[in-house]
Amino acid sequence: MPELKLIERIRRSSNRGGNITRNNSRGGVQAGIGDDCAVLRLPRGHEALITTDFSLENVHFRRAWHPPDSVGHRCLARGLSDIAAMGGEPVAAFLSLALPRDVRQRWVDEFLRGLLRLAKRFGLTLAGGDTAQSPDGILADIVVLGSVPAGEAVLRSGARAGDAIYVTGQLGGAATVLHRLQAGKRIRARDFPGHFYPTPRLEVGRYLREHGLATAMIDISDGLSTDLSHICEESRVGARIVGTEIPAASRAILSLALHGGDDYELLFTAPAKMRVPNTIAGVSVTRIGDIIRGRGVRLVQNGSEKKLAAGGWQHFKG
Amino acid sequence: MPELKLIERIRRSSNRGGNITRNNSRGGVQAGIGDDCAVLRLPRGHEALITTDFSLENVHFRRAWHPPDSVGHRCLARGLSDIAAMGGEPVAAFLSLALPRDVRQRWVDEFLRGLLRLAKRFGLTLAGGDTAQSPDGILADIVVLGSVPAGEAVLRSGARAGDAIYVTGQLGGAATVLHRLQAGKRIRARDFPGHFYPTPRLEVGRYLREHGLATAMIDISDGLSTDLSHICEESRVGARIVGTEIPAASRAILSLALHGGDDYELLFTAPAKMRVPNTIAGVSVTRIGDIIRGRGVRLVQNGSEKKLAAGGWQHFKG
Repeated sequence: MPELKLIERIRRSSNRGGNITRNNSRGGVQAGIGDDCAVLRLPRGHEALITTDFSLENVHFRRAWHPPDSVGHRCLARGLSDIAAMGGEPVAAFLSLALPRDVRQRWVDEFLRGLLRLAKRFGLTLAGGDTAQSPDGILADIVVLGSVPAGEAVLRSGARAGDAIYVTGQLGGAATVLHRLQAGKRIRARDFPGHFYPTPRLEVGRYLREHGLATAMIDISDGLSTDLSHICEESRVGARIVGTEIPAASRAILSLALHGGDDYELLFTAPAKMRVPNTIAGVSVTRIGDIIRGRGVRLVQNGSEKKLAAGGWQHFKG
Repeated sequence: MPELKLIERIRRSSNRGGNITRNNSRGGVQAGIGDDCAVLRLPRGHEALITTDFSLENVHFRRAWHPPDSVGHRCLARGLSDIAAMGGEPVAAFLSLALPRDVRQRWVDEFLRGLLRLAKRFGLTLAGGDTAQSPDGILADIVVLGSVPAGEAVLRSGARAGDAIYVTGQLGGAATVLHRLQAGKRIRARDFPGHFYPTPRLEVGRYLREHGLATAMIDISDGLSTDLSHICEESRVGARIVGTEIPAASRAILSLALHGGDDYELLFTAPAKMRVPNTIAGVSVTRIGDIIRGRGVRLVQNGSEKKLAAGGWQHFKG
């Protein structure tokens, strides 16, 4: 598909949102696709958040398994989930898309439809990007710009011994669907929205930041064991979680709830004495353990406690 | 090369710059690689500029032709040139890099060295990114965040009939080197820095913005004919340029100066009565024609005037 045609398509799609204006004191996109750079204004007193995420065919998705609107949705959801994990607000997205010759226009249209539907839901604009021809496979790289009041971003490094550990939603659902796909089972995308159309937890992240509840936060994209170890490393603490407390998704076995990726739930810590609601913005919040002195993650299971190695979720391999 | 190792490498490389700090009133990176998002503060009263550019093996570079430090340099230069074309200042870069299995660590080290050397020269930080395994070929996507005083970004859309048209430096040099490479000639990278290590015209862009000289601006990445037609389209005007006035690079024929890409010079318009210096920040500035009413680009050559079609520079094809 010709490059210019795709850029024009993105441009028309994103302008349809109607929020490309030169004067908007609340912030937003001042000039968008069609110039050398996008020009964006952040709300007064806010800092910028930036995250970039690849979505590569046969690494993060397969054309045979994932409908194109799901690929577009998941591509943007990966970036939005990172914004959520800082307690931020999304402002704009930028899509770099390299397509091999065998991709049909209909696939691209559906991909953009899925991406733009999610963007509209959370009020951000697709404000730019780049296109190229790919030698092999579909390659998307999504950049999301967000904002957060200066100094208020929730980092991974703020957890302290004595804090309680919480997760949103249920874990292991996306990996369970992936196992079924790998086993050759036919699955209808609309029956498993957690895998095909995950909801980034932006409202939850914002609530936690606004109420000063979270001392550290990360999104669970690589699996609970891996992402909790990231918090421990950045905060220089250890963690003890309890197997029976982990909210496994329906049909998910504990190992997938511990190590499966792509759930896009939030993992956060809060002082143990703080009252954290059981539900925030309609999403369940579950206490699964505590931050302790030392290093590494420990799992309490069947009355004993042992070291939990990071599962090293690597998406799926070709 | 394992993903985590590469992220750690980038992290160490970029921290060496020493400009990741939490409190810096001039703006800059507040938190960098190792969190869900980078957190950046812009100077007070500034807007954000964002640009993304692919650098794909066999589309934008070839491993047999381009030393790895040149690939890293050119990757970042593409983004910096876009910031220059808005009259902006670069703040931070984000690198998404997908590598096939056959790439050696030494190649990656040299790639990063070239990229970071250019970043250091212009005072910006490599503040994040993503890594993945590529099914085929090296795929880099560079994001550059810059800033500009609110409302002062130089857009493509401000050219008016009667404005004069200027270019910086010489044109066609990068394409001339490419033709020699395609013809199988051996070329030493250090003898042709314009192709292998182009200098983004950040000082020139900033000077033009600060002095209110440029009504419209773009960088010449796709070739003069194509990029001038972008200004004409966005400004809804036409242009007339004079063949003998175009500053062709040494050994470059006029067609390459008109249509060759990758020069990363600036093309801008200014009211004809404004005095534009012949040299800005050590870079020559040449008047090549005028903005006129109507549509399209016209070339005056050998005493006659004819329509100049956009050359449609597509980098080189496999």
